[in-house]
Amino acid sequence: MLDAVLDAGRVAHVAVLDETGRPYVVPVGYARAGDTVLFHGSTASRLFRSLSAGAQTCLTVTLYDGLVLARSTFESSMHYRCAMVLGRAHQLDGASKLQALEAITEHLMPGRWADARHPNSKELAATLVLGLPLTEWSVKVSDGPPDDAVEDLTRDVWAGVIPVRETYGEPQPAPDLRVGMPLPDYVGGWGAESRS
Amino acid sequence: MLDAVLDAGRVAHVAVLDETGRPYVVPVGYARAGDTVLFHGSTASRLFRSLSAGAQTCLTVTLYDGLVLARSTFESSMHYRCAMVLGRAHQLDGASKLQALEAITEHLMPGRWADARHPNSKELAATLVLGLPLTEWSVKVSDGPPDDAVEDLTRDVWAGVIPVRETYGEPQPAPDLRVGMPLPDYVGGWGAESRS
Repeated sequence: MLDAVLDAGRVAHVAVLDETGRPYVVPVGYARAGDTVLFHGSTASRLFRSLSAGAQTCLTVTLYDGLVLARSTFESSMHYRCAMVLGRAHQLDGASKLQALEAITEHLMPGRWADARHPNSKELAATLVLGLPLTEWSVKVSDGPPDDAVEDLTRDVWAGVIPVRETYGEPQPAPDLRVGMPLPDYVGGWGAESRS
Repeated sequence: MLDAVLDAGRVAHVAVLDETGRPYVVPVGYARAGDTVLFHGSTASRLFRSLSAGAQTCLTVTLYDGLVLARSTFESSMHYRCAMVLGRAHQLDGASKLQALEAITEHLMPGRWADARHPNSKELAATLVLGLPLTEWSVKVSDGPPDDAVEDLTRDVWAGVIPVRETYGEPQPAPDLRVGMPLPDYVGGWGAESRS
């Protein structure tokens, strides 16, 4: 289930503490590769440098799957899948750094790595790539119908679930796209299906 | 822009430190009311109790709006809107607690507060409601077409943006729904429109 949630998400939220111990929650693109979550940031970011130095962190991926309308507001809630990974990240370099960038690109945009230009040495130097091992983690899933108390079932109010889905819209070609350059086939394969 | 991002989001990620200073990132439902972000948790949660005692926190709302396919993987990225609020939360009680729960319900499920049963005193006692003032915050928006270097523009690769949208699916009535209970009109008004 951990792998399934991480593989279905696109954005993770990572905790970073500044030098005074103040927490920040930062969104990142990421990918899972085996027993590691990979993510990246700018080497210019003070907060990311503290992560690469081995600070304790938490990376959370939440998929918002629907609204649960119970007869009471107390029992009303959301359907979600949430994976929380705790630990210390390590910095990746050399071949493993490039492999991690490929994994992140392919997780977000399957098929793209073979098509787009790979990072050059200057771009690699500006990118900090981190790996967080999947050793300490928890997964929480909320699904199913509303769980109303028996005495609420006769109330004069609708109850049920409204599912939420993420879908891709119409591709918007870049204004400076070369004339006649076709949309790649692999883009057509992206969509809501990849999320569940 | 801060208000617009907070009002468009549904799930926030909140940082909480345990007694050893270890960070956790926890998803919460929330609402903005004036100059405060309201969110709730269980009074049984140790982490939420430390927030109510005034620990430093960060609440981040990220809307994932699309994929940016540049000609290089380095310039490829996401469209997003991200609001980050820093500070210390305070616990709400009495009338302001009930108002906050109404605001959170109405943010997630507009129209529902007038229809569903309100929390009773036992339910209120089990719920911790927190307010985080909008005094220290930042908003970051990434939009627009790919920003490729001039020397990449002639590459033989498609470039552009794939928009991402959140949409509501077909309502799923509770298995124990009373026969003939209609879907409320207000549910029909929810949808992708409310997100942008």
